[in-house]
Amino acid sequence: MLWFVGAGIGGYTGISIGAIDILKNCDLVYVERFTSALQDSDIEGLNSLIGSQVKPVQRWFVEDGREIMEAAKSSRVALITYGDPMMATTHNELRVRAVRNSIKTCVLHSASGLYSTIGEMGLHVYKFGRMVTIMSEPQSAISVYNTILENLLAGNHTLLLTEYRYEGAGDPFFLDPQSVFKLLLDIEAGEKQQVFSLETFAIVASRVGQADQKVISGKIKSLVELDFGKGPHSIAVTGSMHFTESDAIISFTQNLDPPSDNSLGITRVAVQMVLRYAPKAKLAVQQMRVFLREDKDPSGGKGMFEVLDNAEYYISDAERFLNQGKPELAVLSIGYAEGLVDALRFQKGVNPWQPPS
Amino acid sequence: MLWFVGAGIGGYTGISIGAIDILKNCDLVYVERFTSALQDSDIEGLNSLIGSQVKPVQRWFVEDGREIMEAAKSSRVALITYGDPMMATTHNELRVRAVRNSIKTCVLHSASGLYSTIGEMGLHVYKFGRMVTIMSEPQSAISVYNTILENLLAGNHTLLLTEYRYEGAGDPFFLDPQSVFKLLLDIEAGEKQQVFSLETFAIVASRVGQADQKVISGKIKSLVELDFGKGPHSIAVTGSMHFTESDAIISFTQNLDPPSDNSLGITRVAVQMVLRYAPKAKLAVQQMRVFLREDKDPSGGKGMFEVLDNAEYYISDAERFLNQGKPELAVLSIGYAEGLVDALRFQKGVNPWQPPS
Repeated sequence: MLWFVGAGIGGYTGISIGAIDILKNCDLVYVERFTSALQDSDIEGLNSLIGSQVKPVQRWFVEDGREIMEAAKSSRVALITYGDPMMATTHNELRVRAVRNSIKTCVLHSASGLYSTIGEMGLHVYKFGRMVTIMSEPQSAISVYNTILENLLAGNHTLLLTEYRYEGAGDPFFLDPQSVFKLLLDIEAGEKQQVFSLETFAIVASRVGQADQKVISGKIKSLVELDFGKGPHSIAVTGSMHFTESDAIISFTQNLDPPSDNSLGITRVAVQMVLRYAPKAKLAVQQMRVFLREDKDPSGGKGMFEVLDNAEYYISDAERFLNQGKPELAVLSIGYAEGLVDALRFQKGVNPWQPPS
Repeated sequence: MLWFVGAGIGGYTGISIGAIDILKNCDLVYVERFTSALQDSDIEGLNSLIGSQVKPVQRWFVEDGREIMEAAKSSRVALITYGDPMMATTHNELRVRAVRNSIKTCVLHSASGLYSTIGEMGLHVYKFGRMVTIMSEPQSAISVYNTILENLLAGNHTLLLTEYRYEGAGDPFFLDPQSVFKLLLDIEAGEKQQVFSLETFAIVASRVGQADQKVISGKIKSLVELDFGKGPHSIAVTGSMHFTESDAIISFTQNLDPPSDNSLGITRVAVQMVLRYAPKAKLAVQQMRVFLREDKDPSGGKGMFEVLDNAEYYISDAERFLNQGKPELAVLSIGYAEGLVDALRFQKGVNPWQPPS
């Protein structure tokens, strides 16, 4: 029998009453220590609660897993983890291997750092799009940027988890929020999609569940110079907010600027295209009419005016499709109208897209 | 002082060691009972742990909140809730009001039903798009359907929470999975976007954290006739899966069909358009060339062949943009090519889009 027991957040006292009863009856209790979250004093606290010595183990020991599984074949074994046990792929994998080896498994869920963070930020979990981890290598930032963009297009919040590394000794490495801001501002400078700027509103949660937990919210220009202290840190980039969310941000967090909706001003490429091209196409049609009226060569004249009439209909269609929330059809229509105009341009050798000189 | 204390899932023993210490020192402890999750026996268990009588209260009492806040102004008050306290908007709002009334608040997070569910399904939380609640009124199903579509387009899983109502007496109402399947199959019949069919793979988690918890996975055709028992139920519609996720589904759930990626075969409208229109446009260009060659009227001939050459370039551009992941530009190009061809159609009065008779 193999139990996966979550210790919750904020030290060993996050462990549940039910878990203690089970741990007391185990033959062997491992405590995973690959985060600094469970201190020596937590191990002592667990020992006194359970009435036996728990065995601290490193990440490689859990990843290898053979000793744990061998023990669990014939005795009652538990693995205590920080947060919720099933948040980490390592534990999921160990559970899969145990099941395949006909070892009975059970999970005692607990508070996860991730969910607690969303609650402490005052945001509703239902309004988050896909979350994403940001690493210190600049290459990873572009996909993070695109995830924020995709989420904002749907009005959703994005939770950014930050890189964390622990080499088995010394203090763990936590990517700090300033570095995250810098990475994303650099991507913005290249992409220019208005996804992340000094005006972007964000919430930074540091050390959630620990005694020195801090949650600070504001525009990036207010956050960029702050020292957020030790990790772990998570950052939310907010989309459209329910008023209960903005109320909660103001009440629960150290709030530096009024909460604002970062999804305003973010539009799909298709929408941008139609808004930009429709006015230009209208002018080109007018200009082409002028050319045709002044044209001395009468050949094809009548058919060409019909072509321009159609171009105008399709520009109107594009604008209507846009209002109906059908941006792809709008783009198709505007492209079609441009093609109608340019067929005449190629035939006549005149350029209606330039303003008349 | 007002404490929000999560009881976790699966009865009162989900409450943490740390929470018990705090509750023992409170002057007044409320337990919220608007789900059936905390039974009479749980209340008794809490009483004996804390050494005093906790006070069960209904939803309206928490929503009203005045009595709780009045008490918290001068004494130590706790509100025990099922799952994680900050998952429910009601608690968030009460906390905001308390802060505004200068009442100190603190949250003791705990296992949330939602996160535990994702873990029990064997899925990674990082691969979920926005989650959504499905109600029994058919009108709500279209937005649920569109959320699944948006998530699948990005390869993401969707967690469907199902409607839950408790009128303060009797058994609560839980929307059952069969009804959810029926609602979504009905929408599919109208929308035909291949988002939800009898071949869709899904995971149904029922009563997570309770003794009779059940997690069943398979295609809808295998799930549609099953009796899932009492609620609460949650349903995941899977997107692309990491192999550790499919392994976990097979190991952790009652698995009826091999896990499969529902995002295969789901394409953006823009991509569908280009794939459908590009071959037709190529044929139309060819057909128009035939018309022009057979045309007895020599006027405009040379310019028209140039128009058709351009149309062919733009069809190739559309296909290239599609491969480059720029579907909007691809649609613009294909529309443009169609416009070029049709300008000649209007001028010549022939239809190149019909196969030659």
